[in-house]
Amino acid sequence: MSTNIDVESAPQGTGANTISLLLGHPDPSTLMKPDLQTTIQQLLSQPQGLKALQYGSEQGAPTLIRFLVEKINREQGLAIGAANIMIVGGSTHAVDMIARLYANEGDVVLVEAPSYTDSLHIFRDHGLELRGLPMDEQGLIPAELVRQITRLKAEGKRIAFMYTIPTFHNPTGVTLTEERKRMIARIAQANGIRIVEDDVYRDLAFDGEAMLPTTFYALMQGENVFSIGSFSKTLAPGLRVGWLVGKAGEIENFVNCGTTQMGGGANPFAAQIVAEYCRSGQWTAHVEQLRSLYQRRCETTLAALKHYMPSTVHWTHPTGGFFIWLTLPQGFVAADFKKTALAHGVAVASGAGFFVHPDDGKRCIRLAFSFAALPDIERGVQILGGLLSG
Amino acid sequence: MSTNIDVESAPQGTGANTISLLLGHPDPSTLMKPDLQTTIQQLLSQPQGLKALQYGSEQGAPTLIRFLVEKINREQGLAIGAANIMIVGGSTHAVDMIARLYANEGDVVLVEAPSYTDSLHIFRDHGLELRGLPMDEQGLIPAELVRQITRLKAEGKRIAFMYTIPTFHNPTGVTLTEERKRMIARIAQANGIRIVEDDVYRDLAFDGEAMLPTTFYALMQGENVFSIGSFSKTLAPGLRVGWLVGKAGEIENFVNCGTTQMGGGANPFAAQIVAEYCRSGQWTAHVEQLRSLYQRRCETTLAALKHYMPSTVHWTHPTGGFFIWLTLPQGFVAADFKKTALAHGVAVASGAGFFVHPDDGKRCIRLAFSFAALPDIERGVQILGGLLSG
Repeated sequence: MSTNIDVESAPQGTGANTISLLLGHPDPSTLMKPDLQTTIQQLLSQPQGLKALQYGSEQGAPTLIRFLVEKINREQGLAIGAANIMIVGGSTHAVDMIARLYANEGDVVLVEAPSYTDSLHIFRDHGLELRGLPMDEQGLIPAELVRQITRLKAEGKRIAFMYTIPTFHNPTGVTLTEERKRMIARIAQANGIRIVEDDVYRDLAFDGEAMLPTTFYALMQGENVFSIGSFSKTLAPGLRVGWLVGKAGEIENFVNCGTTQMGGGANPFAAQIVAEYCRSGQWTAHVEQLRSLYQRRCETTLAALKHYMPSTVHWTHPTGGFFIWLTLPQGFVAADFKKTALAHGVAVASGAGFFVHPDDGKRCIRLAFSFAALPDIERGVQILGGLLSG
Repeated sequence: MSTNIDVESAPQGTGANTISLLLGHPDPSTLMKPDLQTTIQQLLSQPQGLKALQYGSEQGAPTLIRFLVEKINREQGLAIGAANIMIVGGSTHAVDMIARLYANEGDVVLVEAPSYTDSLHIFRDHGLELRGLPMDEQGLIPAELVRQITRLKAEGKRIAFMYTIPTFHNPTGVTLTEERKRMIARIAQANGIRIVEDDVYRDLAFDGEAMLPTTFYALMQGENVFSIGSFSKTLAPGLRVGWLVGKAGEIENFVNCGTTQMGGGANPFAAQIVAEYCRSGQWTAHVEQLRSLYQRRCETTLAALKHYMPSTVHWTHPTGGFFIWLTLPQGFVAADFKKTALAHGVAVASGAGFFVHPDDGKRCIRLAFSFAALPDIERGVQILGGLLSG
């Protein structure tokens, strides 16, 4: 998770005297729970612990893969098998591997406008061209996808894939509606466009996973679609463990690629810790607690916005995840406001970095309610409100 | 470390009833030592433990960077600073990042013939063209480098970098001599060719680091050269922790690239374990033990080869690392011999996979003395000798 959304403020943004609404970091109090400590301690004296220090299975810890197969099939009414999953070193690893193996330099990657800064950065590092697809409070706009496809066909450009964060989107917190998701899936299928679904916030649905729209993976029956999950938001980012779902033959490509073969599977030791924590049922219970914890933080933030913001400020209303997206009144420039806010002790992310064309975000800021303590969130929003009302 | 050198035999190669001279895996008995267990247990109750579960510093754990700066400066008589080092998720991560950020599709990467299978695989995954540089018992042959550079200039091809494993080379076990290293450094400097030095076996010098040739990084005073180190061979591959040395501005490029920003530093939790293990002096003591352990294994293997192999078989004489390289008598085909050996209960790696042009390795096999127990190594070599004498 970039501390680099705007470099200059990152240090202050995480400094002691600044209220950080900048970073999508999990609540620190949720990271080293006694049950996780116990899991790690037990692992050290078990054969799996020793095994996990050696080069691992390229596909990933079988215990963890079994757990994820059951979870995904139960939650999404699917019938995937172990061959459809690979353990990865966080969503970063999956996004990078997909860009390496499923795109060529000069190809176009379609992304939401706005989208996740660091994924855009990875695509650029691979020499890929980015095209932004406008979105609103219901998520990506299908007509914009059609328009972009037509334009690219005319330009003779190859589309490598569409990268989307459909659930509790980063940076907006918006969830793509079921209706639009089905339309987009049909458009993608009709045009042979692969969808890369970055769904790392899905497990943080305040009302539970059952209330969420179907995944792209389910809608497209696993054809021409990759789905990415992660334990970074729901256990510990520092372990670097996530998962990638795809067709068996495609997962095989990832398992057999150079980095996987050389490294011997993604973070075997950390993945074994996660595997044990999941197998024992502790992770499922932990996620339940996180859902209500982040729901409370989100509600506090929304209430504070309602109370302290002038009517000229608009914001999204997430039902899960870490983020709320603000549109500032006419005349405000987010990059400048960000500096002013920081000078008053509140760190926020200005919108420009989330867009292929920075100007599109010049009146937007992202608030993360995941990291700061509740009273700080309230005070932070009050300060921001004051600055915007002045 | 690929189990995929030849896929078909990998499972048997690691099976219970087969003597595996196939894989460059560390001796399992060295992996979960009580002092490492203690280090991990202590970390769980320390603030650094909690911190290491959050997104980490993009450059890597400061404690570990400090330790590596001192180690490298002491061993190589350099004066690098923290800005010259980045912690990576094993050498895999460094090799992949370099290919992503310092090469474009279609560029040429110069590699030793033979070279490390999985690095070749990573370069191919990035759409890079490989050219092999012949080597002998003294390592890469400078004249061959000059010849290849001339040829590529004539072809109008761009050389992204030269990838070399100068110390206890994988797969041959050969160490590039000081004299040749200086010649190659001069050739590279004269032609503006970047050198990527994969030096992950350097710490396993049987007679100690002081007896080794200078590194390319030192010879080239850090100009146009990257040096890669790893804890996979000297602590635990499953932790996925290594380091990358380069110019401050270049390390900054890696720290600021998309994957680093998104992931928040390479494996923060595992890296903190390694940091504590190094800071306390335990790693240095551990490496001392590994050196004599692997020296004994190497000597046992060489003695067995001398005793059991017909005079028509030739092999290298490593002074460190994990591997010995055999050239089979006329008339033998390594790929077939590998199958025969496996049928007789010994797994070896056939040479083809280590070459850009597989035919160049058709009479060669790699023996790893790192993994199997001493009596098994001896028995394995005896079986191989019998098959080659028949």
